Amino acid sequence: MEIITSIEKMQKLSLKFKREGKKLGFIPTMGCLHEGHLSLVDLLVVKSDILILSIFVNPTQFGEGEDLEQYPRTFEEDVEKSKARGVDIIFAPKADEMYEFGFSTQISESNISNRLCGKSRPDHFNGVVTVCTKLFNICQPDFVSLGQKDAQQVAVLKKLVNDLNIPLSIEVGEIIREHDGLAMSSRNTYLNHDERKDALVLSKALDLAKSLVDSGCNKTNEIKEELGKLFKSVSCARVDYVEIVDSETMEFQRKVLSENSLLMLAVWINKVRLIDNRLL
Amino acid sequence: MEIITSIEKMQKLSLKFKREGKKLGFIPTMGCLHEGHLSLVDLLVVKSDILILSIFVNPTQFGEGEDLEQYPRTFEEDVEKSKARGVDIIFAPKADEMYEFGFSTQISESNISNRLCGKSRPDHFNGVVTVCTKLFNICQPDFVSLGQKDAQQVAVLKKLVNDLNIPLSIEVGEIIREHDGLAMSSRNTYLNHDERKDALVLSKALDLAKSLVDSGCNKTNEIKEELGKLFKSVSCARVDYVEIVDSETMEFQRKVLSENSLLMLAVWINKVRLIDNRLL
Repeated sequence: MEIITSIEKMQKLSLKFKREGKKLGFIPTMGCLHEGHLSLVDLLVVKSDILILSIFVNPTQFGEGEDLEQYPRTFEEDVEKSKARGVDIIFAPKADEMYEFGFSTQISESNISNRLCGKSRPDHFNGVVTVCTKLFNICQPDFVSLGQKDAQQVAVLKKLVNDLNIPLSIEVGEIIREHDGLAMSSRNTYLNHDERKDALVLSKALDLAKSLVDSGCNKTNEIKEELGKLFKSVSCARVDYVEIVDSETMEFQRKVLSENSLLMLAVWINKVRLIDNRLL
Repeated sequence: MEIITSIEKMQKLSLKFKREGKKLGFIPTMGCLHEGHLSLVDLLVVKSDILILSIFVNPTQFGEGEDLEQYPRTFEEDVEKSKARGVDIIFAPKADEMYEFGFSTQISESNISNRLCGKSRPDHFNGVVTVCTKLFNICQPDFVSLGQKDAQQVAVLKKLVNDLNIPLSIEVGEIIREHDGLAMSSRNTYLNHDERKDALVLSKALDLAKSLVDSGCNKTNEIKEELGKLFKSVSCARVDYVEIVDSETMEFQRKVLSENSLLMLAVWINKVRLIDNRLL
């Protein structure tokens, strides 16, 4: 396995592979790899001639006061895990090469991005789509895999790829959970012992919603009301949003469920913001 | 020569050529081809295995009240001229396929774009960089040629390509002029007989500036003042801007000339807006 930090070197190599007719797989990450990321490696390792995983904590997708500085960096472990799972190249560019002095280009998606996490984190998705476009241009992937945990990010990036005619296909890996149900996330490392327990309220909420649906409830407001009660019962939990949306368009479903109803949660556990989701 | 209107067909073909190691040249145009465009074909025809020329009157780069509807369409002639000059593929997509219902992604460059034509035509360059990114993704060029007449567009697109790491090189073709000095432009067809004569004031202004410089003047304000007098002497001419800028960054040079001083003109001849420029 090779580790590349130079943008120019990575891009030259990718273009060479493409000229040779090789199929390239790509997984964009911010490092601190867990089983969620590694399941995305598994998705692509078979079908890719070359599998590239990027590790880049992208400053432009963090807002003011967010956790850019404290975001966990575990490069050596990430390298070991990637190697063991079959990654061919780790691409780890430097921020000042990705964003040279005078950088002045931004991509924005103005529909799906404007709600849910996009409302709580203004400019977040602008940062995501801009850096991903750069990474796609550098790494030239045929396949990209993304985790369903960031469901809105998946929807936004699918829209980006479609609108800008980027020639790649996106594969979505299911949410990987700890044994007790907590969705894996690099931000789980911020939780202390008590918060870790309280954080289970997210996956419990997903289960509660599913059981309500199974017992015949199809009114979105009723489901949201029940979940509201559950979150209120956990003192350190503060809801950012609880919404039921169309899984592709992320449009709010205000009345009844449809086939594509996706329950989306963003909840603060004290100072740690966690997200989770489930098809209903 | 082949004419392709389907985005999917064009992209599949481009990707196939790339896998075969072929070098692709690309010239984005809005049609109504004149010798300026065709000189760009000459620039790339030798070095490209496949030369693609796109014809697409891009609605998103026209502002409200601008000349989108009346913009000249001369498709059959364009095809003949392109064929005669060595173009291999004309790509002429439909607007409703380029911008499907619900299109919601935009690219913006926020430094070079904000002055000169960008000030007079808000959103113009957003439309340009977005459509060019789409065309680049569809046509996968190694080389793109652009005309120096649209000097600011060249600077903006170079910035786009650099900022987004788009793997192509831009070649700039010099301004091609009519025998009497008027810079070739599809919009010259709007001029009536008298306006056509008066339009010569632009190239005369460039010559005047050059002679001022040759005679030792290097103060940008003095040069602009002399040009102002010249434009005032033509009754149907109304200056949009007369500026001296750095040719790469498009930054205004407020005091004295430098090595990269570019004189930029945008002048209305009655209802026709013309641009021209010259290195001083």
